[in-house]
Amino acid sequence: MHYLEPLFNPKNIAIIGASHHEGKIGHTVVKNIVDSGYKGRIYPVNPKGGEILGNKVYKNISEIEEDVDLSIIVVPARITVDVIDEVAKKSKFIIVITSGFSEVGNIEGEKKLIENAKKYGARVLGPNVFGIYSAKPPVNATFGPSKIKRGNVAVISQSGALGIAMIGKASEENMGLSAIVSIGNKADLTEAEILSYLFNDNLTKVVFLYIEGLENGREFLEIVRNKPSNKSIIVLKAGRSKAGAKAVASHTGSLAGSDIVFDSALRQVGILRADTLEDGLNWVASVALSPPPKGKNVVIVTNGGGLGVIAADACEKYGLKLFDDMKILKKTFEDVMPEFGSYKNPVDITGQAGGKEYRMALEKAFNEPNIHSILALYCDRGDAQMEEIKKALIEVSKKYSNKPALYTIFGGEGASSIIQALKREGIPAFSDVEDAVSSLYALYKVNERKEEGKLEKIEMKEDKISEIIERARKEGRRKLLSNEAKEILKQAGIDVPEFFVARNIEEAIKLANKIGYPVAMKVLSEDIIHKTDVGGVILNIENDKEVADAYEAIIESCKRNVPKAVIKGVEITKMLEKGLETIIGATNDASFGKVVMFGLGGIYVEVMKDVSFRVAPVPKKEIRRMLREIESYPLLTGIRGEKSKDLDSLVDTIYRIGILVTKFDEIIELDINPLILYEKGAKVADARMVIEVKK
Amino acid sequence: MHYLEPLFNPKNIAIIGASHHEGKIGHTVVKNIVDSGYKGRIYPVNPKGGEILGNKVYKNISEIEEDVDLSIIVVPARITVDVIDEVAKKSKFIIVITSGFSEVGNIEGEKKLIENAKKYGARVLGPNVFGIYSAKPPVNATFGPSKIKRGNVAVISQSGALGIAMIGKASEENMGLSAIVSIGNKADLTEAEILSYLFNDNLTKVVFLYIEGLENGREFLEIVRNKPSNKSIIVLKAGRSKAGAKAVASHTGSLAGSDIVFDSALRQVGILRADTLEDGLNWVASVALSPPPKGKNVVIVTNGGGLGVIAADACEKYGLKLFDDMKILKKTFEDVMPEFGSYKNPVDITGQAGGKEYRMALEKAFNEPNIHSILALYCDRGDAQMEEIKKALIEVSKKYSNKPALYTIFGGEGASSIIQALKREGIPAFSDVEDAVSSLYALYKVNERKEEGKLEKIEMKEDKISEIIERARKEGRRKLLSNEAKEILKQAGIDVPEFFVARNIEEAIKLANKIGYPVAMKVLSEDIIHKTDVGGVILNIENDKEVADAYEAIIESCKRNVPKAVIKGVEITKMLEKGLETIIGATNDASFGKVVMFGLGGIYVEVMKDVSFRVAPVPKKEIRRMLREIESYPLLTGIRGEKSKDLDSLVDTIYRIGILVTKFDEIIELDINPLILYEKGAKVADARMVIEVKK
Repeated sequence: MHYLEPLFNPKNIAIIGASHHEGKIGHTVVKNIVDSGYKGRIYPVNPKGGEILGNKVYKNISEIEEDVDLSIIVVPARITVDVIDEVAKKSKFIIVITSGFSEVGNIEGEKKLIENAKKYGARVLGPNVFGIYSAKPPVNATFGPSKIKRGNVAVISQSGALGIAMIGKASEENMGLSAIVSIGNKADLTEAEILSYLFNDNLTKVVFLYIEGLENGREFLEIVRNKPSNKSIIVLKAGRSKAGAKAVASHTGSLAGSDIVFDSALRQVGILRADTLEDGLNWVASVALSPPPKGKNVVIVTNGGGLGVIAADACEKYGLKLFDDMKILKKTFEDVMPEFGSYKNPVDITGQAGGKEYRMALEKAFNEPNIHSILALYCDRGDAQMEEIKKALIEVSKKYSNKPALYTIFGGEGASSIIQALKREGIPAFSDVEDAVSSLYALYKVNERKEEGKLEKIEMKEDKISEIIERARKEGRRKLLSNEAKEILKQAGIDVPEFFVARNIEEAIKLANKIGYPVAMKVLSEDIIHKTDVGGVILNIENDKEVADAYEAIIESCKRNVPKAVIKGVEITKMLEKGLETIIGATNDASFGKVVMFGLGGIYVEVMKDVSFRVAPVPKKEIRRMLREIESYPLLTGIRGEKSKDLDSLVDTIYRIGILVTKFDEIIELDINPLILYEKGAKVADARMVIEVKK
Repeated sequence: MHYLEPLFNPKNIAIIGASHHEGKIGHTVVKNIVDSGYKGRIYPVNPKGGEILGNKVYKNISEIEEDVDLSIIVVPARITVDVIDEVAKKSKFIIVITSGFSEVGNIEGEKKLIENAKKYGARVLGPNVFGIYSAKPPVNATFGPSKIKRGNVAVISQSGALGIAMIGKASEENMGLSAIVSIGNKADLTEAEILSYLFNDNLTKVVFLYIEGLENGREFLEIVRNKPSNKSIIVLKAGRSKAGAKAVASHTGSLAGSDIVFDSALRQVGILRADTLEDGLNWVASVALSPPPKGKNVVIVTNGGGLGVIAADACEKYGLKLFDDMKILKKTFEDVMPEFGSYKNPVDITGQAGGKEYRMALEKAFNEPNIHSILALYCDRGDAQMEEIKKALIEVSKKYSNKPALYTIFGGEGASSIIQALKREGIPAFSDVEDAVSSLYALYKVNERKEEGKLEKIEMKEDKISEIIERARKEGRRKLLSNEAKEILKQAGIDVPEFFVARNIEEAIKLANKIGYPVAMKVLSEDIIHKTDVGGVILNIENDKEVADAYEAIIESCKRNVPKAVIKGVEITKMLEKGLETIIGATNDASFGKVVMFGLGGIYVEVMKDVSFRVAPVPKKEIRRMLREIESYPLLTGIRGEKSKDLDSLVDTIYRIGILVTKFDEIIELDINPLILYEKGAKVADARMVIEVKK
């Protein structure tokens, strides 16, 4: 049994702040619990005593004769902090509906609340939530609408008002719910733990998660990675935009991680993210009602050419494959095809087709094993045919459940009436064809298995890496010098060409000769970030004389441009041959912790923002996906007859970076810029690293 | 009076093939005309005679005692061709509802039909249409639904079934129509002429155009360019995708132009294109019902934070500006803001706000002159509040008409009921917030004035250009040699560095010395397209010896690789200094004729497909927009402290290309690849041209 079972299936419930007055939240919660047919014991708590809706009111929670699985607090914020000890002593789970905590800056109050609850081992949902509905008991312990249809969709919402509205929307759309959970400020229980319960709940088939931010991204990913294959999840994360993120910050006080990282993390574990609320709800409904497709072949059946063309456009946009075997299409539909119809997919049986022909065409599509999913489109002709069509669609979709079929009825009153009827019967139906196509896309997506691959064991000289980091730390230096950063990369097994530090001209000449000409020279100073801009870099140095000149020029120019810079010397390296410049980075994301980034050097990252992210460490299989995600990917594999670059070396380098920043949590920022990629090999030309220095 | 007036406002109508039998198209058309309250004379024509719905049936059209403004033909295709002469003699306009023409390959029949009609000066709408509705008389001369609400939206549909369904949809959405026109095969009248009427029709405010292809793109653009500023048009073009284009081809036989060109052409004249049918209809409804916004400042008012965040995300996506002057926001909303609310836009008056507070907040937004448009969001709480909200929303939106306000009500039954009520009152209302935001975006877009700028007069040596083209034509050569192409560009006033053709080594050396080293040498042959791949190009040639070697190497390599190639010599040019490589092209589009293209050289065009198009000739102002459209635009203006490239020279070159291919219609393909762009100047490094050679 899952440890959250008493929250979703409590044997008894106490309502702290239960009210005698209709319309008050403390009353609505009790009423909803009673009306939902909850079979467990109900303990309203209110100092006034008496009785609410036939249930004896306890003056104090301590008067209740047994321990309570679930206590729901609806008293004001300041009283909540006062009573939490008492409640926690008695309860396994506490839902704090009360608002007025961190979402309005009362962080202290929220912290105290959770600390006190935890003292007694009680877990808290909230504060600032509308409650929970769970189909198992069943129980509707919310102050939202009382009417909830039982079904297989679970909803988790960070937003209260939106969550309550979703209950109404679900009912309006005839979508059955297995649970709806309001997570609000997520002060203790978060979406991650709730998900872990729902993935183990046999009433739930698909979870719709609305969030605005994610603090424990790794826990979340881990739970999703272990999701049973017959459960699906669709996420709507708001606060995507800069403007949206501002709104989020003012709304729940949650720290939104960078949106592009969030997007990549979902892709990494194969979670589908909806762009809009409408898409999210359509997708969830379609997944809840449809069997998984057994193959890629989609057939569009339409009575209107125009709607078919629009659907075909949408299919291409969403990457759905229109079945195009003309022989099979012809064989399948020849008995129902009128004179001016078209076998080509979209299969157009034209406006001449009545209910009988349309029904036959659908049955034929269901019976043809090479067709794996069906988009059935119908243009309302405003005639009496509609009743016949309604009957036909309902009967056919009840008869066949072997493949997904999504219905679009476009038109007037008749169309609306068919859509309503289909929804009532639990058949996915839409008024807009794009919605149907995007829902079919979602159905394919949630049924794709996503394997990130396995991590491999690699060698790294960890003691030497620690040594470098420790030394910088002791000196209180956050930014490592480039030779330190390079040394760490070298010890991590990455190909860093020989480099030395010269502190004077003689040393410089000696080292240059040791390396062999031509060489490059760069100033070494943690105070200088843009070395090139201040004359701190000289390339293609060919002989001793040039080394001497370069040394003097670098020191002179840097001192003049950055007078306060402490210059630790000049770094000398072999000039690298030309190759493809790439950038590999790692950073610390607020939601997911260490993430790695990849992109091509120069304009591709700076102007085109053509980069991809993954949560570290990243298995090699997933790194290859990461590479393919950038638009400039063809440059890696070679365009215009060029040979492919050494992708194995590139993947190995990214892999080592992922492992490195995971093992050494202190490395909070890392850039290899550029990593020069050749047909054989990949070499670090320059690197930057920032470590965390504890105060 | 517009010459199409008798089509939209006929004084009398004949129905050729009027039927006595209910359910037949020939009956439905008569019935719809009668039921729509048409005041003109109705002449059903049927050899059987008698009476249909109280109207005397004529056995033959020639029996009708007066000329007819509009004849509608519903007899089968082969009879249509038989009767067309007779009908055309008598009629100004003929609507051929009958199908079975070019859409099923009967191109001959369609041609004959139009020819015969034109003989008598009659114009034809169709064939393969469902008829026309026009609010002016009013008359519903379609076989679609009889119920049509009068209003200010005109619909033009290439698809019949979709058009009929749109009548139903409009009625269901309470959208009033000024006209709906089915254009079907567009054998005579096309969307262009219909548009020109509607833009002059004072009942019409916004036109929704559904098309799958466009043959006379230039006529269409010209009509849109002359559109009065108080009329709007929104286009949905299907057949966007490859799969969709295939469906179009099989559906109407129309030749779909390349979709990216279509997109650019619409942008060029400032037409808004909808991606989906739902968007198109939402946008049209919002434009029809809303005043134009007087400024950019958008305010979101919400009772649910989550919905506000989602709306803010969508606003950013659509480029809408959230008003962020905190002082004014605070001043505006302070009287209605509850304890936990937020002034930051999205303005969140929280779930505590009832109908009264919500109404006050809206009124304040309407009254604040710095707020130019309103997105009003409401999360249904499933409580009794909804009736109050409904009343508040209707009253407020009736009271204020000074700025656009779009309403989103999200939730259950209560939400649906408010949306329905608002729509009944002619207020734009949505169940999904993304739909509302995208509609506001559309409202801003259609009210933007788009000026392409004016064409300037430039000098071009037209006689010399003609000479080169004529010579190639006489020799039957479609592909010009690169020296011919360059000569044409030079005569068009474009900067082409000196180039000569050598036919032997001695000549080559002489010419190289004349130009001055370093030089580049390229094989001259119309049989060799990829010169570099066959060893036909040698660069950076520094002296006489190298010229001789290069000459031999080029001839030898090209002969070996392309044995059949006729080699006309070797072109010698000055080596150009390094600069930014760009590509300028021109081609002949099936819909729009001559179009020009711009992109950056190499990977940007080949891999990133980062190009922009315009219909030629293009005014310079519009060329600058064209440049800004590519994603790699920052490379032109200079990144990382680089200076900007010479955009004036670039613009001038593109301008000349636009003029050149317009003046010389024979040039059907042109590529300058690359045009090398410097801080000062832009030079043609290589060019290719194809001319039309009439057989």
